Amino acid sequence: MDHIENDEQFQGLSVNKGTSEQPTINPYLNSFKKFKRKTYSVSEYVDGIRKGNISILGQAVTLIESSKPEHQSIAQEVIEKCLPYTGDSVRIGITGVPGAGKSTSIDAFGMHILKKNNKLAVLAIDPSSELTKGSILGDKTRMERLSVEKNAFIRPSPSAGSLGGVARKTRETIILCEAAGFDRIIIETVGVGQSETAVHSMVDFFLLIQLAGTGDELQGIKRGIMEMADGIVINKADGNNIEKSRLAQSHFKNALHLFPLPESGWVPKVLTYSGYYEIGIDEVWNMIDEYIAFVKENGYFEHKRNDQSRYWMYETINERLKNNFYNNTVIQKELGVCEEQVLNSQISSFAAANKVLDIYQKISK
Amino acid sequence: MDHIENDEQFQGLSVNKGTSEQPTINPYLNSFKKFKRKTYSVSEYVDGIRKGNISILGQAVTLIESSKPEHQSIAQEVIEKCLPYTGDSVRIGITGVPGAGKSTSIDAFGMHILKKNNKLAVLAIDPSSELTKGSILGDKTRMERLSVEKNAFIRPSPSAGSLGGVARKTRETIILCEAAGFDRIIIETVGVGQSETAVHSMVDFFLLIQLAGTGDELQGIKRGIMEMADGIVINKADGNNIEKSRLAQSHFKNALHLFPLPESGWVPKVLTYSGYYEIGIDEVWNMIDEYIAFVKENGYFEHKRNDQSRYWMYETINERLKNNFYNNTVIQKELGVCEEQVLNSQISSFAAANKVLDIYQKISK
Repeated sequence: MDHIENDEQFQGLSVNKGTSEQPTINPYLNSFKKFKRKTYSVSEYVDGIRKGNISILGQAVTLIESSKPEHQSIAQEVIEKCLPYTGDSVRIGITGVPGAGKSTSIDAFGMHILKKNNKLAVLAIDPSSELTKGSILGDKTRMERLSVEKNAFIRPSPSAGSLGGVARKTRETIILCEAAGFDRIIIETVGVGQSETAVHSMVDFFLLIQLAGTGDELQGIKRGIMEMADGIVINKADGNNIEKSRLAQSHFKNALHLFPLPESGWVPKVLTYSGYYEIGIDEVWNMIDEYIAFVKENGYFEHKRNDQSRYWMYETINERLKNNFYNNTVIQKELGVCEEQVLNSQISSFAAANKVLDIYQKISK
Repeated sequence: MDHIENDEQFQGLSVNKGTSEQPTINPYLNSFKKFKRKTYSVSEYVDGIRKGNISILGQAVTLIESSKPEHQSIAQEVIEKCLPYTGDSVRIGITGVPGAGKSTSIDAFGMHILKKNNKLAVLAIDPSSELTKGSILGDKTRMERLSVEKNAFIRPSPSAGSLGGVARKTRETIILCEAAGFDRIIIETVGVGQSETAVHSMVDFFLLIQLAGTGDELQGIKRGIMEMADGIVINKADGNNIEKSRLAQSHFKNALHLFPLPESGWVPKVLTYSGYYEIGIDEVWNMIDEYIAFVKENGYFEHKRNDQSRYWMYETINERLKNNFYNNTVIQKELGVCEEQVLNSQISSFAAANKVLDIYQKISK
């Protein structure tokens, strides 16, 4: 039994930073790099995406991820033109600590989805990926079977800076994928940081992958994630592990009873399965179908989608208001001084805030 | 057995808004209102507070709560002068749904605290109190015994507008209370809104009061609160209710095992007690003492206090940056238009955000 996957190297072994990409000795590389790809016009991009051309879709996503203003301006036009053709999909967030078996599971879930004649896009949010050169989904081969399927589009996490930036790019990528006819979108994230909140606010169903055990595995999961989950699934319920998994299942079920009912009115389910041996994959996916039917019926699906659109508009505004303030070098210096005074009880937190804000008002005129 | 308290009227009975304050027909009221209280200078306020003069403390808190600029400027000076004498206290947040028995419990906890020769201030955060004229702590007599004790200072929630404003005022009131020698501060809140996060970020220990039952009572508690608690206590564990309370206790204990360990390293405890019959009050308070000793030993106490000071500085900045933006009437109009377009998929959330921000930048020059 081999559960080892890329994620796991970040658990036990130390990763020597800076060696994650091997130096190349290919003498032709430079001339190869000079070779430019064909560039498309906005309408060529939109047409290609609408026809489901994966290569053009991929290049459009690259524009979204680019920080160059000329790329961004084309990307934004393409997105606006694709918008009317979006929304008709099911978006699923999947989280779990490294080692929980996310890739193996997504590979199995994905093959199940394709069999039902759906088209699947697998995206990821991992703000740490700039440092680790993609700790999740950096390597398509982690999803061995999916990666060679023509109806699957797998894209690693954008690797640019802040969580806000990464999340925006992923949300924009969803738009393009949906316009290209992908009607199932999976967004993968690692359940250890702030990224689940971002993922949670762009998906219809949030799935938490757990492992059976004494509770030690849970130490890696961020507090609050369990309450976000619409479903908790316990992976590696196979062989000797079946009984332990059932026990974990009943523990989680009991715990969920103590939580208030989510706004959706849906009582989160707890299931066991095995991604590697493909046991219980149907049941997991049936649960998601059942949830979608349930919330479409009671109106929560539409309600949540609208909330999410609003959320991202206001979230973007708030983040940029803050960035303008905190990226100001005069303010940065002043904040350092004030923080020191606050910690020494020389000035109250509120007086310090007002002082810095007054300075900001003066310099931004 | 009588568990009815003020809170409970908001559960079952409908409250006719606008009649919570009776019209007065007292003919002398206007001439009485013209009678002015003695006003103090900043140093008189500070001296009085430092000497533990409750009447002067009360008037200083009134200045904090006032929206008049002249009052605010005196209040801020008093706060800055009191700052050096603060910090040497234990701050406890107490939350629970209406009907959980918070007032009865605080009355019992408070008498226990006074017996130990501590001085106790009971404050509250309830942003809804403007509408309901103080749904919590509006009425001192809810804490029958505490309210007549000279070493207890009870103050209802400030009733002004936004949660941010109410929280700021409460945090500033803590400073004055501590300078006046109150070494135990309880901050009460209703566990149904956003206010617990505010309370959680100004206390050392966060106590959640629950009731035994089938889980129905929990529906009123906001998701995520359980994970904030350093201790969960099940009230009304008396008479026929003892067995049910013990069962609830074991359910909560099991559930907490599934949560990751909090940053403090402290495993939250679950206890049963009866506020009305004063059973188990010692145990609840011993738990808090034990926690404080634990986190002072491992350094988390100091660490958290510093984090909180920083948090309030940055929180105030962020809130005021947002207020400046969202209170702008041009922006408000533009946001309404953009939100509509976003919900109709005419424009993406991000494009809408950028559009409004560009307008803001132009008009604030």
